[in-house]
Amino acid sequence: MPIHHHPTSTTPTLYLSAQDVVHIVRRKGLRACFMGIAERIHRGFLRWAHFDKSSRLACHSMRGAIELMPIADAQTYAFKYVNGHPGNSQWGLPTVMAFGVLADVDTGLPRLLSEFTLGTALRTAAMSALAAKVLARPGCTRMALIGNGAQGEFQALAFMHLLDIDEVRLFDTDRHASEKLMRNLHDSGLKLQMCHSVAEAAQGADIITTATADKRQAVIISADMVQPGMHINAIGGDCPGKTELHPEVLRRASVFVEYEPQTRVEGEIQQLPEHFEVTELWQVFSGQKPGRTANSQVTVFDSVGFALEDHATLCFLHDTALELDLGRPMDWMQNLSNPKDLFSALQQSTPAVVGPHL
Amino acid sequence: MPIHHHPTSTTPTLYLSAQDVVHIVRRKGLRACFMGIAERIHRGFLRWAHFDKSSRLACHSMRGAIELMPIADAQTYAFKYVNGHPGNSQWGLPTVMAFGVLADVDTGLPRLLSEFTLGTALRTAAMSALAAKVLARPGCTRMALIGNGAQGEFQALAFMHLLDIDEVRLFDTDRHASEKLMRNLHDSGLKLQMCHSVAEAAQGADIITTATADKRQAVIISADMVQPGMHINAIGGDCPGKTELHPEVLRRASVFVEYEPQTRVEGEIQQLPEHFEVTELWQVFSGQKPGRTANSQVTVFDSVGFALEDHATLCFLHDTALELDLGRPMDWMQNLSNPKDLFSALQQSTPAVVGPHL
Repeated sequence: MPIHHHPTSTTPTLYLSAQDVVHIVRRKGLRACFMGIAERIHRGFLRWAHFDKSSRLACHSMRGAIELMPIADAQTYAFKYVNGHPGNSQWGLPTVMAFGVLADVDTGLPRLLSEFTLGTALRTAAMSALAAKVLARPGCTRMALIGNGAQGEFQALAFMHLLDIDEVRLFDTDRHASEKLMRNLHDSGLKLQMCHSVAEAAQGADIITTATADKRQAVIISADMVQPGMHINAIGGDCPGKTELHPEVLRRASVFVEYEPQTRVEGEIQQLPEHFEVTELWQVFSGQKPGRTANSQVTVFDSVGFALEDHATLCFLHDTALELDLGRPMDWMQNLSNPKDLFSALQQSTPAVVGPHL
Repeated sequence: MPIHHHPTSTTPTLYLSAQDVVHIVRRKGLRACFMGIAERIHRGFLRWAHFDKSSRLACHSMRGAIELMPIADAQTYAFKYVNGHPGNSQWGLPTVMAFGVLADVDTGLPRLLSEFTLGTALRTAAMSALAAKVLARPGCTRMALIGNGAQGEFQALAFMHLLDIDEVRLFDTDRHASEKLMRNLHDSGLKLQMCHSVAEAAQGADIITTATADKRQAVIISADMVQPGMHINAIGGDCPGKTELHPEVLRRASVFVEYEPQTRVEGEIQQLPEHFEVTELWQVFSGQKPGRTANSQVTVFDSVGFALEDHATLCFLHDTALELDLGRPMDWMQNLSNPKDLFSALQQSTPAVVGPHL
């Protein structure tokens, strides 16, 4: 958490551009970022009861969804704006784009506004690896990665840095996506293998990660591909009508979720009745419920992404930006000489706001 | 509505700072802004069925609330971040601060991010005047303004510009607030009168506007202050536990609201049973239901602020900024050479994003 103090007009809102976040990650290194983010997410889950939680507010259209994801603890409010538009590459745009905000609960003053496309990729991968730490068999080394788009490299590297994955078997319906991932990670230390089908990639894997973008009820993983002891990290099924696993895969597995009310609507379990039993991950982290209980058990992390993860990651970015002196102050309407006198901002010939703001 | 076209990497997101919005209002003039915003809000209400509507998502704490207000039509998604913290002036901060975003529904790409504290004040006042046009008696000239904080001048001027109000009777528990309003509007053309009580201000008024900030169940207006034919523009009661009118005032009046599901929770009518009859304003604008039907009728606009008004106002600011060439492009993660290759942004020695971005 950032150091908490009452902001005044001398504490401007910090703006981090996409390039600023790139600089943060380059200067700290990806491994340190994954570890720092995973550690904060873990701490957040241990403080589960302290958060004011709600399901995200999604606006669905033919081509995709735009979502707002708010959450707050007693000090810090966070929200993320994020879209998911599987057809975006035809316009030269990423499928997922995001930005995030931190604000003081006591005053409502925004403290950080950050581009958060890269941040979202980092936190999703960190969350996946964190879940796998308590759900996958100890000593896992081989992962199948189905869907090799923008999230692919981050998943592979988070599992390498936070677990012991040293081999990743790749499959994507778009061969160029897999080739791009091979190129990007050729000197990562990971052994990479392109496969011709999901089944081939899944063969012999300890962990299967699905990160496809198609907005439909798809069956990427069927029950015959799943071997005893596997952990399935299901990322891509994350809104109503968008799933990746055959329901039989879920029925034969122990299913873990982030925030049950949201996952019931958005996750793989939207295919199953309301009473299908799932475990919220905070219960596992806190020791209240078991994670994996047997080597032969199949575990599924039905991941849709929860605001707590963004809260933790935005706090990480904020603290790191202050440490590295990155970012710029923003010009909000917070520096009025008389806070009840908004109107005078229109009358002054001098700027209403002082200082080197954006 | 802004001209709709598919954005590409050559269409950057526009950023409007607090100062940019001040420049827009100064260059266009307040009257033109009120008229332009009211006209767009009106057009929005006439297109009611075309919007994907939801109640805002509020996070309440001891000191205030932080809210997200999304809405979308088929082309344009909008949301506003806004807080309400009545005690903020002790930290030198405004009670209400806001920023807003416009994005393309088809791609999720943000097209505008604007500081929106001033925008919120403008749209609230424009909405109040627009409602009064169909709810107040024709030929109203005298308004009581209870609560003379940041919103005060905007209410007074919107009613002067969009109706025929030429006299405003002021009351605030903080005498300095009324004096500030007197100073700010001394050459506005309005006849201004400071009063010693709510009752004195309300005496002989055609319209009573309440815009107080206290977060509690207050009784600013009691039934004995209300005369036949009055219109009450109730702005300040806008979250659970925060009201300004005695319930008897509502029972004796015809009550009009923006979006009923939200107002039931946040508005003055939270004090009354669910079956208490109200009329949504779009029905009046479209001619489906009557507004005022008799000179002696008391009408109440139970205003809480609805996302449609922000959508309209953000579109107005966006179009006007383009017309006046104000604002600056922002650096989002939208200009990747390969949209599926987010990871390469970390590897390039050159910036991932091109151009004179923030």
